[in-house]
Amino acid sequence: MLAASLTRNAGQPLAGQLAARFAERIRNRLLAPGARLPSVRECARQYGVSPHTVVAAYDQLQGQGLVDVRRQSGFFVRDWAAAQSARKPVHAAHPAKSGGHTVAADASSLIRGMFYRPSAKPQPGMGVLPPDWMETPFLPAALRRIAGGPLLQELSLQYGDPAGDAVLRRSLAQRLADIDVPAAPERILTTVGATHALDVVSRTLLRAGDAVLVEEPGWAIEFARLESMGMRILPVPRHADGPDLDVIERYCRAGTDLRPKLLFSVSVLHNPTGYSLSPGSAHRLLQLAARYDFHIVEDDTYNHLAHERATRLCALDGLRRTIYVGGFAKMLAPNWRIGFLAAGEALFPRLLETKLLATLTTPALFERALAVCIDQGQLRRHAERVRDRLDAARTRSVRLALAAGCRLVSEPAGLFGWVDTGVETDALAQRLLDEDYLIAPGALFYARRPPTTFMRINFATSQDAAFWKTFARVRGESIKKPGAAPDME
Amino acid sequence: MLAASLTRNAGQPLAGQLAARFAERIRNRLLAPGARLPSVRECARQYGVSPHTVVAAYDQLQGQGLVDVRRQSGFFVRDWAAAQSARKPVHAAHPAKSGGHTVAADASSLIRGMFYRPSAKPQPGMGVLPPDWMETPFLPAALRRIAGGPLLQELSLQYGDPAGDAVLRRSLAQRLADIDVPAAPERILTTVGATHALDVVSRTLLRAGDAVLVEEPGWAIEFARLESMGMRILPVPRHADGPDLDVIERYCRAGTDLRPKLLFSVSVLHNPTGYSLSPGSAHRLLQLAARYDFHIVEDDTYNHLAHERATRLCALDGLRRTIYVGGFAKMLAPNWRIGFLAAGEALFPRLLETKLLATLTTPALFERALAVCIDQGQLRRHAERVRDRLDAARTRSVRLALAAGCRLVSEPAGLFGWVDTGVETDALAQRLLDEDYLIAPGALFYARRPPTTFMRINFATSQDAAFWKTFARVRGESIKKPGAAPDME
Repeated sequence: MLAASLTRNAGQPLAGQLAARFAERIRNRLLAPGARLPSVRECARQYGVSPHTVVAAYDQLQGQGLVDVRRQSGFFVRDWAAAQSARKPVHAAHPAKSGGHTVAADASSLIRGMFYRPSAKPQPGMGVLPPDWMETPFLPAALRRIAGGPLLQELSLQYGDPAGDAVLRRSLAQRLADIDVPAAPERILTTVGATHALDVVSRTLLRAGDAVLVEEPGWAIEFARLESMGMRILPVPRHADGPDLDVIERYCRAGTDLRPKLLFSVSVLHNPTGYSLSPGSAHRLLQLAARYDFHIVEDDTYNHLAHERATRLCALDGLRRTIYVGGFAKMLAPNWRIGFLAAGEALFPRLLETKLLATLTTPALFERALAVCIDQGQLRRHAERVRDRLDAARTRSVRLALAAGCRLVSEPAGLFGWVDTGVETDALAQRLLDEDYLIAPGALFYARRPPTTFMRINFATSQDAAFWKTFARVRGESIKKPGAAPDME
Repeated sequence: MLAASLTRNAGQPLAGQLAARFAERIRNRLLAPGARLPSVRECARQYGVSPHTVVAAYDQLQGQGLVDVRRQSGFFVRDWAAAQSARKPVHAAHPAKSGGHTVAADASSLIRGMFYRPSAKPQPGMGVLPPDWMETPFLPAALRRIAGGPLLQELSLQYGDPAGDAVLRRSLAQRLADIDVPAAPERILTTVGATHALDVVSRTLLRAGDAVLVEEPGWAIEFARLESMGMRILPVPRHADGPDLDVIERYCRAGTDLRPKLLFSVSVLHNPTGYSLSPGSAHRLLQLAARYDFHIVEDDTYNHLAHERATRLCALDGLRRTIYVGGFAKMLAPNWRIGFLAAGEALFPRLLETKLLATLTTPALFERALAVCIDQGQLRRHAERVRDRLDAARTRSVRLALAAGCRLVSEPAGLFGWVDTGVETDALAQRLLDEDYLIAPGALFYARRPPTTFMRINFATSQDAAFWKTFARVRGESIKKPGAAPDME
């Protein structure tokens, strides 16, 4: 069948339409540099056109400089970065588990895809709540209140405080006290989103070649950043109660050159599994950190989505060897890019220095408006409403996923579901793009990006029966043999 | 005489007042970690108190953990970073020219001071225009227009485009075309201020240990960032017509390990000298870059302050081996943190990737409001007014500086004056802090921070006769022998 909507008798010949479709995907990095295009035969079958048409389309792409031909092996997306790059990535400590799988040239290609909306349909692969879930009257009101008076000039016309707006830092200190994390406003640093907070920590504590523990599955941005900085990534399997302590200890006892400096952990509502750390694991993990002298970055991005009081490493440890990272992109306004970190006395000046050298300061106007939303309790009430709505969405999404033949890998919780589709999801993702759906293939969540049959769904955007119908059809059509799921222990 | 305002018979004893004053300076990094406090005798003389009082004050600081005593050599600001640091800075390629001068432990301490306003007085050391110079009706109006309607939610509730707001990028492309820099909107990347743009370029093109050409004198943030990233800084004397081409060529012909990868240059209204690149120098510099295969980052931060059409490397080169960096902190709203870069086709995707891994996106709301100001011609007209006002301020400031016994090192132009005070300015800066004045000592503008008799003044904030009167008095009191001015060729 005709997998997608090439239009016969339209103004543009079929080959041109096909070339345009691939060109758009290449430009938006949904096809990564170095990735192989489908074979002529396979592509012809998928789109219901003649092999001649496919060859003509691929020739056009080659003419546009978007793909290269390699003799006897096919067409590949041209890799500008690799051709121009002055630096060579340091390889992770562990060899890829899967032979034969082509790792795309740059690890953030697929992430770039996450910012691309193929259509107005709800997108199960998105990493945030749909905009209408975050729409509130209080956020614009707070901004207008700040921007409407003399504060606008006061907060705009000077560089401001390198540590961030003092009013917001006071609010954040109070919020942290509520979850038993002891951080004075003077130990809180605002950043350009939680991503930037993680970046600031990495740049401050790590040097190229350092070994870093990262939970796996985990978030692709983290893997990609550490890789681009030349770190050795030591993947640690994430279980329901926390990161695998035996694996961590094994790394710590290995050679001194592999002795980890830092662990990145999403304790609460981990992405993509939804797992939350148990108190016992937290305690033992901190003991390990003390024994083997590494720091822990607790990424609490999903904090506002947690129903009950969850266990946090920073609360147990009191920011001695832990650093707290938080943000608001999952609840309020992703584009305001407000994140923050809290750290102990010894580390704080160094973290502040790193922020200062990278961005000087951050926009205080947004920070002050956010402080208003926090202080008036609006954020808290909004978060309660979102959690209730997400509970309902989760129930519905899980039901649809199961009905479409998926298996839930972990107990559903929070924003994301981690599901096993039974078929290799990188290929599935490309096929679903033809149907204007963006999914998050499981490979995104592993340091080495092995082929996997997993995918992450966003419970808020996976409630649409139409998606799951299309999903089930495309999955059924899949002729590729499913790759083995990576070892989950 | 009593240099400053310790108050006898006030509620607090003199020792406590003195300790509090030093404590504040240490906390604000106006006294850098590792810096030596004045000797007991000198301090007693400066403040007109007994040596006993000074000893008591220093004891209090020690008790607070702010200073350490080193036997036979005095009191030093405690250096937490050095004690805790896991990394060791790579030393610049050139040995310090000056023996005996203690380089402060972290290079950005003094920069931190730049964010600190000791009083409401106009501060000659500031790096931006005074807030009231930047106050306009159009900036708040543009923000309210964007934030007042549905655009607020549209621009806030999604991550947005990693390259930056598309509307602003179109405006910027037009502005760049006006100065003959050919950059399509698709080759423009918005950043968190020009500082972040420079950071993104460094992280993309350089690895630890790479050699980098930096103009000297130059801006401290640049030196500090490159040092913190472990680069080898190759200082290039900056002359009236551009960077010293002979020195650049000598570096390029030296060993291959010192072969520079990149040159950072402020072509127009260079900080701190006010020099602007000549067309002939620009041409020859680009030839050197081609012959020895290095890239050039053209930092055009002072763009809006240039009266006439200036020569820009990016215009000659067409962004082949140049990268353009611009910002708005010197004209509109420093805290909005809007900067940008423009680059050629090959480099652009890599730069975008670096931004994405560090901050994901940047706040589109401010970017869109700025686009309104540019498109309606308001920014251009505002810049004209500021330039006229600055011309008058420059005339007055220069007259006062000359009357106070200073010599202008370079022809006055733009925002900054580069003046020779005849006395060592690091010590002078500390003494003037006692009078609530912040100056920018010349050492800030050299990679190795040698003692110098130079200082940078901001023409807009140096028009106050009261400052120059105090300056002349403190300078006259200076008992220190003036250090030699660094070699300016």
